Amino acid sequence: MTADADVTTRLARFLVESRWEAIPAAVRHEGKRTLLNSLGAALGGCADPAIGKALAVLRQFSGPPDATVIGRAERLDALSAAFLNAAAANVFDFDDTHLPTVIHPAAPVVPAVLALAERQRVSGSELLHALILGVEIECRVGNSVTPYHYSRGWHITSTCGVVGAAAAAGKLLALDIQQMMWALGLAANQASGLVESLGSMAKSVSVGNAPRNGIVAALLAQQGFTAAPRTLEGPRGFAHVMGDKPDLAAIDDGLRTVWESARNTYKPYLCGIVLHPVIDALLALRAKHGLNAEHIDRVTVRGNPLLRQRTDRPRPRSGREAQVSLQHTAAVCFVHGAAGLREYSDACAAEAAVLAFGDKVEVQDDPAVPVEAAVVTLRTTDGRTLTHEIRHALGSLGRPMSDHEIEAKARDLAVFGGSGCDIDRLIDAVWGLELLDDVAAVVRLTAKQP
Amino acid sequence: MTADADVTTRLARFLVESRWEAIPAAVRHEGKRTLLNSLGAALGGCADPAIGKALAVLRQFSGPPDATVIGRAERLDALSAAFLNAAAANVFDFDDTHLPTVIHPAAPVVPAVLALAERQRVSGSELLHALILGVEIECRVGNSVTPYHYSRGWHITSTCGVVGAAAAAGKLLALDIQQMMWALGLAANQASGLVESLGSMAKSVSVGNAPRNGIVAALLAQQGFTAAPRTLEGPRGFAHVMGDKPDLAAIDDGLRTVWESARNTYKPYLCGIVLHPVIDALLALRAKHGLNAEHIDRVTVRGNPLLRQRTDRPRPRSGREAQVSLQHTAAVCFVHGAAGLREYSDACAAEAAVLAFGDKVEVQDDPAVPVEAAVVTLRTTDGRTLTHEIRHALGSLGRPMSDHEIEAKARDLAVFGGSGCDIDRLIDAVWGLELLDDVAAVVRLTAKQP
Repeated sequence: MTADADVTTRLARFLVESRWEAIPAAVRHEGKRTLLNSLGAALGGCADPAIGKALAVLRQFSGPPDATVIGRAERLDALSAAFLNAAAANVFDFDDTHLPTVIHPAAPVVPAVLALAERQRVSGSELLHALILGVEIECRVGNSVTPYHYSRGWHITSTCGVVGAAAAAGKLLALDIQQMMWALGLAANQASGLVESLGSMAKSVSVGNAPRNGIVAALLAQQGFTAAPRTLEGPRGFAHVMGDKPDLAAIDDGLRTVWESARNTYKPYLCGIVLHPVIDALLALRAKHGLNAEHIDRVTVRGNPLLRQRTDRPRPRSGREAQVSLQHTAAVCFVHGAAGLREYSDACAAEAAVLAFGDKVEVQDDPAVPVEAAVVTLRTTDGRTLTHEIRHALGSLGRPMSDHEIEAKARDLAVFGGSGCDIDRLIDAVWGLELLDDVAAVVRLTAKQP
Repeated sequence: MTADADVTTRLARFLVESRWEAIPAAVRHEGKRTLLNSLGAALGGCADPAIGKALAVLRQFSGPPDATVIGRAERLDALSAAFLNAAAANVFDFDDTHLPTVIHPAAPVVPAVLALAERQRVSGSELLHALILGVEIECRVGNSVTPYHYSRGWHITSTCGVVGAAAAAGKLLALDIQQMMWALGLAANQASGLVESLGSMAKSVSVGNAPRNGIVAALLAQQGFTAAPRTLEGPRGFAHVMGDKPDLAAIDDGLRTVWESARNTYKPYLCGIVLHPVIDALLALRAKHGLNAEHIDRVTVRGNPLLRQRTDRPRPRSGREAQVSLQHTAAVCFVHGAAGLREYSDACAAEAAVLAFGDKVEVQDDPAVPVEAAVVTLRTTDGRTLTHEIRHALGSLGRPMSDHEIEAKARDLAVFGGSGCDIDRLIDAVWGLELLDDVAAVVRLTAKQP
């Protein structure tokens, strides 16, 4: 038997045996940053039409209204609330990113722990511990199937998210090792989500299903509902079916010492992360040379091939499509000097000046350029050629957002979402989370205020 | 643009424009057979521990108890009931089979239409029409990714089932073409289920999710919740991600004239389908010559090599293993004269007489024998050699189960499940379904009787 022949078992043992005291301080703090950034993202996304439409459907089937729907007045059952909270946190793709896999780690995991924290007493440290472990499993499973998985067309946040959510839920439910194995297996069996769906509301369904189905997996496992013993690593299991020559060792190599969850990053701009170094470069060029849109004749962006694959999308037809459009993004940097919530609206995507500027943008593949880097060259109408290289985009591991920047982002998002949430009180509560014996009141702080 | 470039659109148009009057009589009748066989399977499976455990979890989150859970006293919301009814119908793998894909077509589709029929007025012909269309789409999507999809490790009943369920639900909701496209896309985006899970309860989760998520897909689409326009056929869509060089033309070639849903088959015996001709031959020999187990010295089975590869399994240790054991199957034919639910229990697998008889069985490979055929030779203790050849097993397309045999199977399953359902009344209702303006009362007939 090879070392990777029982990775589902080893993950289950790690999860069950993990103690809060053994989590390094830096990892704990990153867990809080992940939580705050995710709550901010959900408070910003809660009023999106996709969330309202999903709420209109799910409320018809909702059981006991035990759980807070972030930014909304309605309370729903825990599963439906978890669905909506994940969808809201991720709807703008303005949430966190685990760069090696491009997983948005918090969206599937945070709603699972929030929902359970309103069903049972959960302390601040228990919540953070479960969140950190869920993100850890999610990202490690993602590492094992990267890069094939995403490039094949799997929406990795959804597919790996359900496994992370089950791990987090299973920790809060205090599952034993056998139950945790089943929970991971039941979750992996529900992995779904297609990259084809990005740019439409459909994305939010598989993201929403991730915590919902992860919680169900953990609760079923608690009842003795079985799964195959090797659902992650077996020949017809997750990694072999959804990966190509998966690196099963990556799932638990360095477990307990190397924390993937501490490598989480947060976006300063509201668009696909591969676009961030391009924005840094464009805003820098614009500021340095005092340029406006009418000064630019041509924009050439040299980047990792992923940049072209994901964002070479001229004239996007909606704000959502614009978020993964290099052409739109370059345009708003020059036309509006920003790349925030308002620059990725449907209205902004339809602006004549933005569309016209987008037509000036071209992209060149360069495998030597890392994903977090870009080289932007402008040709000006007066014949100058100006180049700026970004090695580490703001928000990348090489230049992370500060705690203060994450707070400011959360405040901006909370205002944008319009829920009237007391964001300062919520921010204080997150930074002081370990001091709380019961976090249910913190969860309720995220509801829409009357 | 190639002919397969807009297959999601063409399927949506077919579904929306389809009229009951245009469905051939034979297809309509097959729809009733599919419905009756599935209701029987669910009535037989409803008491399985997997269903009880899933019910214990889902009832905690259930909304309005609008929907019948087949064979149970509890009523749950429509989504949870659909989950449980699909799981029950498929839990023994004793449901229907679309042989080209090995999809069990009814399990994902029937629960979707039943659940909606208790939420809105649905006539008998409307229910059958939606069921037939759902099965049609499910099997055609399955054809497009067969054989790669299943052999890669996708549990095709779950993955294609959610698309069929959405199609059926969308028809009952009278979606327009745009909404139906979204419904198909939202469903395809939720396709999941791993072959690794077979043999564990986990299988029932992805099967249960299929109608649940299919209904959600259709309801979301009705709200204007969007999906990508080419979720089935796009480069990062269902067929390319979950298939290998998918045959997209197979999805709608011959649509309206060739009905996959009319090629459904039903199992007379609770075991691997390759064993079915062997059972036919053994039961025929037993009846014709008045033989009992003690009269038999040796059983020699000549069959397609697949028979030996899949079922040469002496002394299986459980009822589930017995379902793929030639030795056990031959033994129960002679020891019990049957190969039904009771003959594939753990208890039966451990019976001394069954084990002893199984040791008398040998198998011979003959590539010239088709999978649906077998040649069985008995040597009796008094020195006779008796041979019987089966060319088309009962239940295969060459010798389908009669309506009467499907009725008898449903009766046997209903008794086995112990719900006290008035199966004769249910059978009459299914055969006369077109006469009903509202089928809700028929659905309620399937509940556990007090």
